[in-house]
Amino acid sequence: MILRLLGRFYNHPSHSCSVPRLFFLLHYVHSISKESIIDVYGCVTKSPVLIEGCNPDTVELHCERVYVVSAALPTLPLQIEDAMRPEDDETALSRVNQDTRLDHRCIDLRTPVNQAIYRLEAGVVRFFMDYLTKAGFVNIQTPKMISAASEGGANVFKVSYFSGSAYLAQSPQLYKQMAIAADFGRVFTVGAVFRAEDSNTHRHLTEFVGLDLEMAFKNHYHEVVDLIADMFVNMFKGLQREFAAEIETIGKQYKAEPFKFLEPTLRLEYREGIQMLREAGWELGDYDDLSTPAEKFLGRLIKQKYDTDFYILDKFPLDIRAFYTMPHPHEERYSNSYDFFMRGEEIMSGAQRIHNPTLLIERAKHHGVEIDKIKAYIDAFRYGCPPHAGGGIGLERVAMLFLGLDNIRKTSMFPRDPKRLTP
Amino acid sequence: MILRLLGRFYNHPSHSCSVPRLFFLLHYVHSISKESIIDVYGCVTKSPVLIEGCNPDTVELHCERVYVVSAALPTLPLQIEDAMRPEDDETALSRVNQDTRLDHRCIDLRTPVNQAIYRLEAGVVRFFMDYLTKAGFVNIQTPKMISAASEGGANVFKVSYFSGSAYLAQSPQLYKQMAIAADFGRVFTVGAVFRAEDSNTHRHLTEFVGLDLEMAFKNHYHEVVDLIADMFVNMFKGLQREFAAEIETIGKQYKAEPFKFLEPTLRLEYREGIQMLREAGWELGDYDDLSTPAEKFLGRLIKQKYDTDFYILDKFPLDIRAFYTMPHPHEERYSNSYDFFMRGEEIMSGAQRIHNPTLLIERAKHHGVEIDKIKAYIDAFRYGCPPHAGGGIGLERVAMLFLGLDNIRKTSMFPRDPKRLTP
Repeated sequence: MILRLLGRFYNHPSHSCSVPRLFFLLHYVHSISKESIIDVYGCVTKSPVLIEGCNPDTVELHCERVYVVSAALPTLPLQIEDAMRPEDDETALSRVNQDTRLDHRCIDLRTPVNQAIYRLEAGVVRFFMDYLTKAGFVNIQTPKMISAASEGGANVFKVSYFSGSAYLAQSPQLYKQMAIAADFGRVFTVGAVFRAEDSNTHRHLTEFVGLDLEMAFKNHYHEVVDLIADMFVNMFKGLQREFAAEIETIGKQYKAEPFKFLEPTLRLEYREGIQMLREAGWELGDYDDLSTPAEKFLGRLIKQKYDTDFYILDKFPLDIRAFYTMPHPHEERYSNSYDFFMRGEEIMSGAQRIHNPTLLIERAKHHGVEIDKIKAYIDAFRYGCPPHAGGGIGLERVAMLFLGLDNIRKTSMFPRDPKRLTP
Repeated sequence: MILRLLGRFYNHPSHSCSVPRLFFLLHYVHSISKESIIDVYGCVTKSPVLIEGCNPDTVELHCERVYVVSAALPTLPLQIEDAMRPEDDETALSRVNQDTRLDHRCIDLRTPVNQAIYRLEAGVVRFFMDYLTKAGFVNIQTPKMISAASEGGANVFKVSYFSGSAYLAQSPQLYKQMAIAADFGRVFTVGAVFRAEDSNTHRHLTEFVGLDLEMAFKNHYHEVVDLIADMFVNMFKGLQREFAAEIETIGKQYKAEPFKFLEPTLRLEYREGIQMLREAGWELGDYDDLSTPAEKFLGRLIKQKYDTDFYILDKFPLDIRAFYTMPHPHEERYSNSYDFFMRGEEIMSGAQRIHNPTLLIERAKHHGVEIDKIKAYIDAFRYGCPPHAGGGIGLERVAMLFLGLDNIRKTSMFPRDPKRLTP
């Protein structure tokens, strides 16, 4: 039987890639430039020997005709073999640095690892949406162009809007909360979030994908915390179940410990975290904010003690949270707020929100927020709003930390940072 | 048994709303302002009479205790009864105009119709994503901030980006195509799309949600057209199956004929459309572009002849399509491109894209596009790219036209147009 295959001409096997990579030993096809798309007609036969590095490794295609569908330039800006070398391979002749990769992203993305990363990342979004939809959440769409800076005004991008100006939303929070005030009960939204911070770190982007949710509750904000934790556990299990091959492929190039989590999820109070750090020699006050190194160190302590990479810090000090955070009902220096962590890095920040306009104004004044700038926000609660809590998750951070990668640019297909707006 | 209910104090029943609407006849609770959130403890008993306008209509709650959880201001900026009146009700005392609705969106969204519309719209997204995921598509995330205006430069919003400038993407097309050139095979993306057009019509927004897809094919771009048509048919069936109650609720306020479609989807060539219009008295050249009224009229002709609200116009004249559109292989004045229509309005425009850089440059020059402005786009095809086609769907238009609504602001929760950036 003559089989027809449309694929890419090259000398390494494909893993989870949609386009097969075709490997030839014939002399005449060597005139075809590597990475060209070719159309091949031939017979599949059993190979007399195992073909090393190929999958499947027991069959070969006896070629009858080969057509070039789309020729690649003979000189590639980067070699796929170089781009797919393990980072810890000390014998490697050459590797590809991150800027070269990003400058030529549509070649770099052809590596088995990149094919695997973005398939798994799509899985993160799917598990988030499917779980919440089944739990009665409504997927809403929130605007990215807004009339006023939502959280005070710093770190927002300004847009020319006809004869006036607009800003790019730093978070869909106002809109999620308006949907709660509008009786939707449980909502989520997936979309671009913008931060005009001049941060050039391994974990900051100026544009990322927010997985946001908000939920009215009956008795206690822990109803929301428990649901979010269960959503994550369901996601992690789903990723390990459905993307085992991708995780293995990624692990070959970027070594990492498998991601561990408990059921139910470990939830510690903030003060317990402070206590653990103090016992390890850190000097911290009860109500101090945790620095990034302190957070990371706490992550290691928690891993040692509880054997989990995933946990919740609950009941943050009131002073270090945003003005709209609900104070704790009995302990005035604490609040009904929480962060979720993966491998010692924050991936979700959330809280019960103040739904009483009088208390909201009082807290905004305490934080020095100008009341007339947040009038629309306050007004959303003047016509009845149920108690509610929620949070915002960074998609690229979840994928990065689940896989144990060291840079968020490895989980953003076309990353944006203060120095990069292309491709 | 004492039942506890958290709900909204008001005098009309809820339909698909998450928060129950509670209806009291007792005198003392009349001091509670309408739309407040209350917490009620009481016994459910069989009602001696049918309670008109309530669902369920045979039981009542014998109230023991009532608490106000969140009080609404006594004067509401709009009355829910007014906001839910049918548009064709000539006896209506007062209705609520669109700007008042949008200015007080978190009250307006509490109407049964709005609760139903945004639940159904979430269904549109879900059916789109689920169908494509099952068909092997990968959900990708594309940047909204880009370094250069993607399609020529007109109608883009400019963003201050640190010391330089960026633009808001008018379409994710370049990124979808790069993912195809990077071996993802089949991709889709759901996200905000921006158009700086000063159009104040019933169907234009400056920011809307794009449901975009792109797919490599083997033999013919109709493989892609057929898959998209099947995706839509699956979506329409799913909406009619899972959202029958919502469609009925919406139909009570906004009358519309039920949406009709054929299986398989009707696909007409552009020249057949021109012929039908000519026979109906329109004066049109073979290669003329269709005006919006001509499109709408053609929609009515097609409905009469084929009894469908959903159809494809295929093989558009080459001159009226974007420069990157693949010319027809045999008829030089036509192209491998198509539009999908619902009730005579375009909801998706798509094409086979040119994947050969030489032809792409030639066509760009023919259209007067400056080559150095689209260098990154052309370069994406220099290292091998399979033949591919795709399209971009406007979410709000699909929801509007499926439901037979007259304005896109009815299917955008927080619409943006040249005159509106709030709430």
